[in-house]
Amino acid sequence: MSLAQIGRELRCQCIKTESRFIPPRLMQNVELIPSGPHCSNVEVIATLKSGQRVCLEPRAPWVERIIRKILESSKPTPESQL
Amino acid sequence: MSLAQIGRELRCQCIKTESRFIPPRLMQNVELIPSGPHCSNVEVIATLKSGQRVCLEPRAPWVERIIRKILESSKPTPESQL
Repeated sequence: MSLAQIGRELRCQCIKTESRFIPPRLMQNVELIPSGPHCSNVEVIATLKSGQRVCLEPRAPWVERIIRKILESSKPTPESQL
Repeated sequence: MSLAQIGRELRCQCIKTESRFIPPRLMQNVELIPSGPHCSNVEVIATLKSGQRVCLEPRAPWVERIIRKILESSKPTPESQL
């Protein structure tokens, strides 16, 4: 038994992707799943604050923008606040 | 009861973050959690193929690079393959 497999889906999660814009404030988290033996597609899954899970189009420019925005909204490290 | 809360942690997940490089081929998925009422920090959590979960430093340049690389490795849409 491989413990590493627990909680890992062994197939693609997304049947279709949403390419229309979803405001980032509605997003609870965004999961990026690289392609691999389980699925030949890169998958980007947003969990909305409503609890709904939505597959996003990895190649949509707004998806990359939202991800960058989440990273950039990270506060400066304590060192840079001195 | 709010169904939307199921599976959602109501506090920060990361005590410390790993700022050293982790090769993307070891990553099973990467989760981005925007800051919010539950936690004032943006959190980036990689689940490794070993099953280990590692908090990454959202401001580390390599973290942004890896995320961009995952998105860019997405195959062209069927339309563009015609």
